[in-house]
Amino acid sequence: MDRKITILGAGLVGSLLAILLRRRGYDVIVFERRSDMRKAAIGAGRSINLAMSTRGWKALELAGLKQDIESLAIPMKGRFLHLQDGSTAFQAYGRNGEAIYSVSRGELNKRLMTLAEQAGARILFNKRCQKVDVVNNKIYLEDVVDNSNVSSQVLRHSTDPLEEVQADLLFGADGAFSALRTAYSHSDRVSSAQDYIEYGYKELNIEPGTETPWRMEKNALHIWPRGKFMLIALPNTDGSFTCTLFMPFEGELKNCFSALDSEEKIKAFFELNFADVLPLMPDYLAQFQRNPVASLITTYISQWHKSGNSALIGDAAHAIVPFYGQGMNAGFEDCSVLDGLLTELGEDWGEILQRFQERRKPNGDAVAALALLNFTEMRDKVADPVFLERKKIEKEIGLLYPEEFTSVYELVSFTHTPYATAMKCIAAQDALLAEIMSHGDFKENLLRPEFKLKLDQWMEEYSKQVASFEFA
Amino acid sequence: MDRKITILGAGLVGSLLAILLRRRGYDVIVFERRSDMRKAAIGAGRSINLAMSTRGWKALELAGLKQDIESLAIPMKGRFLHLQDGSTAFQAYGRNGEAIYSVSRGELNKRLMTLAEQAGARILFNKRCQKVDVVNNKIYLEDVVDNSNVSSQVLRHSTDPLEEVQADLLFGADGAFSALRTAYSHSDRVSSAQDYIEYGYKELNIEPGTETPWRMEKNALHIWPRGKFMLIALPNTDGSFTCTLFMPFEGELKNCFSALDSEEKIKAFFELNFADVLPLMPDYLAQFQRNPVASLITTYISQWHKSGNSALIGDAAHAIVPFYGQGMNAGFEDCSVLDGLLTELGEDWGEILQRFQERRKPNGDAVAALALLNFTEMRDKVADPVFLERKKIEKEIGLLYPEEFTSVYELVSFTHTPYATAMKCIAAQDALLAEIMSHGDFKENLLRPEFKLKLDQWMEEYSKQVASFEFA
Repeated sequence: MDRKITILGAGLVGSLLAILLRRRGYDVIVFERRSDMRKAAIGAGRSINLAMSTRGWKALELAGLKQDIESLAIPMKGRFLHLQDGSTAFQAYGRNGEAIYSVSRGELNKRLMTLAEQAGARILFNKRCQKVDVVNNKIYLEDVVDNSNVSSQVLRHSTDPLEEVQADLLFGADGAFSALRTAYSHSDRVSSAQDYIEYGYKELNIEPGTETPWRMEKNALHIWPRGKFMLIALPNTDGSFTCTLFMPFEGELKNCFSALDSEEKIKAFFELNFADVLPLMPDYLAQFQRNPVASLITTYISQWHKSGNSALIGDAAHAIVPFYGQGMNAGFEDCSVLDGLLTELGEDWGEILQRFQERRKPNGDAVAALALLNFTEMRDKVADPVFLERKKIEKEIGLLYPEEFTSVYELVSFTHTPYATAMKCIAAQDALLAEIMSHGDFKENLLRPEFKLKLDQWMEEYSKQVASFEFA
Repeated sequence: MDRKITILGAGLVGSLLAILLRRRGYDVIVFERRSDMRKAAIGAGRSINLAMSTRGWKALELAGLKQDIESLAIPMKGRFLHLQDGSTAFQAYGRNGEAIYSVSRGELNKRLMTLAEQAGARILFNKRCQKVDVVNNKIYLEDVVDNSNVSSQVLRHSTDPLEEVQADLLFGADGAFSALRTAYSHSDRVSSAQDYIEYGYKELNIEPGTETPWRMEKNALHIWPRGKFMLIALPNTDGSFTCTLFMPFEGELKNCFSALDSEEKIKAFFELNFADVLPLMPDYLAQFQRNPVASLITTYISQWHKSGNSALIGDAAHAIVPFYGQGMNAGFEDCSVLDGLLTELGEDWGEILQRFQERRKPNGDAVAALALLNFTEMRDKVADPVFLERKKIEKEIGLLYPEEFTSVYELVSFTHTPYATAMKCIAAQDALLAEIMSHGDFKENLLRPEFKLKLDQWMEEYSKQVASFEFA
């Protein structure tokens, strides 16, 4: 434990990483751009929640924090669909009632910070990393003041020197706009990309009811799929729901943020598309006009570490869009994998970080692709009867062939299967389901022994194909 | 001409842009990172040459510089192939003896700078733009000293304030690592990417002969295609040839730069692969060991301009790999198109820059893709007999159907067809040629009237398909 560890960012991943490294005896210091959120009140509309799934829980278990967080978490067992015609439908996520869990980002982050400090890590707040010298492993910090947990204001005058800190072993857990990632991207032969999608999002809130706290089904992720846009809602422990409207910034149609520029237009839009939400959100107009529209980015970078001296982790390495609920889960899985490599390789950080990149980079690329694909599914496909039929068949097959078949959604959310493998399974499952569905009604077919024989054959072929993929 | 124009970069595109804008009466100032290359000797091995083709000549003609540069240019009428077995072959670029032209980058740049100054532009040297404030259109400069024309050394102490310049209308012609491009990429919702290929390049030189100056065919671009790597050579006016070796940096095979780490290995590599070059380059070993290996980047950015106040042009907007010889040609075409928009739209810069992006961004993406595709063609396909047969048939068809058919290479190098259209023609031409070649020997088939009838039909279909593309 000779090496001292510097972490940029005390967000979810930075705090968890600090805990895991302290438990192994490393000296850990963390620099965080924002103020200490445990001291400042978090403003209304900033209670963004997360969907914690199997990968996230595993890392929390490693950190000894699973039970503590479970008390904050609301299981969501499926998608609760609110269709345009006013009808609703429930679509279970797993064949055995598995759930993903709605957790408050703020509460989770606070507890992780406290646990990190209890474990002996030092967290210094209001320290923004302005640049990194990756060759000499030095970071340059400036003091910032953070009034709102949203934007930060620079205190430093342009002539003040930056605070220079010599890092020994440096982790960039500093998010989508990581200073360490920027420094890597300025190195020769480092490829990188940042892709914004044409969609933005706006947060809205459904208050708890006075009689029953949750005024819609509590144990579900609510979706209003509308083809080119969608509204979702996740339950909070106080009975409220955090809603998010995803929609194009601009467009030729009226269904985009830039087009909704008057009270009349906003009202007409909500009345047409979200009629069942209006009674639950009487102040939707004020909320819509008050809350900002934020953008959605995916980032890629070819270099995740530098010769045993520094590495990127979490969003800093692979920021993704939120549509699979996997951003935090992927970052936490980074931590689990790194922890496993520490067990395996001791203190050979050159080798540890090299293997970390080799194992995680393909999965970072895959989860980015999965998240983009799931957006189309959520906003559009879930309203399609053929797609819903497919989902039902998938579940049946999962029950009939529990060893052979696990849907991609289940692989991603309820297993530790590498994301890259889940990605590979998409084509195989598409082919399998297309074959099955080309023969007409599945339930009726199942009654015919000759179809059941064919199905056995298809499943055997599918299993053979998938067996060549890497599942651990 | 109310607006004053600031240009970052006095390279080829920045200097040409300065000339064109001065001719329209604008006040123009140019900040250049390097020293004045007209005063400093350009070191050996830095005489990189360019392949000027139709798009480049058009822009030079606009600037009134065509005749002046023609005296420096050596026509190259085709590829002169040096195959591994020692045999050679010549492959004409055009059906009518069209040529691309080898021009010295340094000489061309010097003349453009001088012309820009003569036209009344001011060029300030050793001024590096450190950052750009795109919202307020301010640039921040530092003084640098440039000893070698290769790397520059910072004079400024970290506490010295940067020189702040308020730009009115700003152009970033500052190359692949453009400061303005970097500033744009830090704006919300601007997508960008930088992709390095796995290949590097090393320059080598063949000296002029004592009896005959050009010791190989003068009017050709020489290629030693070797599958995964290649050597090329372009003629210079003094009788020398500038050679470039393109090869992977690393790899499992021995044919990569990292593997050639001893005299023995370098010798063995050259003797095996470039036997006919050795007599022309007796000092190849010293050159190989002395000259650096450089990397190759393609850049993309979604925003090329900011609300009538600033814009990217040339490599700053679309840096590409050099394999189609189109980097400078594309940048010069940017200048021609911008000049055309000035004629069309007067001084409505908001509209001019918006249209500039709309017209040029799809072509920047297309020329980037074309350049990457042409690398495979040059290093690998040109050594394939089937490919050579196809090239011959293409030329025949071009002669038989001069109105209907122009090969993609000709479209790119000898016309002003938008690059995006040339890109679209690839699939159409691939299908056409596959059909033609599936019937066996083309010359024999031509003697059969029924084949000729079919060919007429195919050409009609091809013409119809291509007629829907945009050719101007």
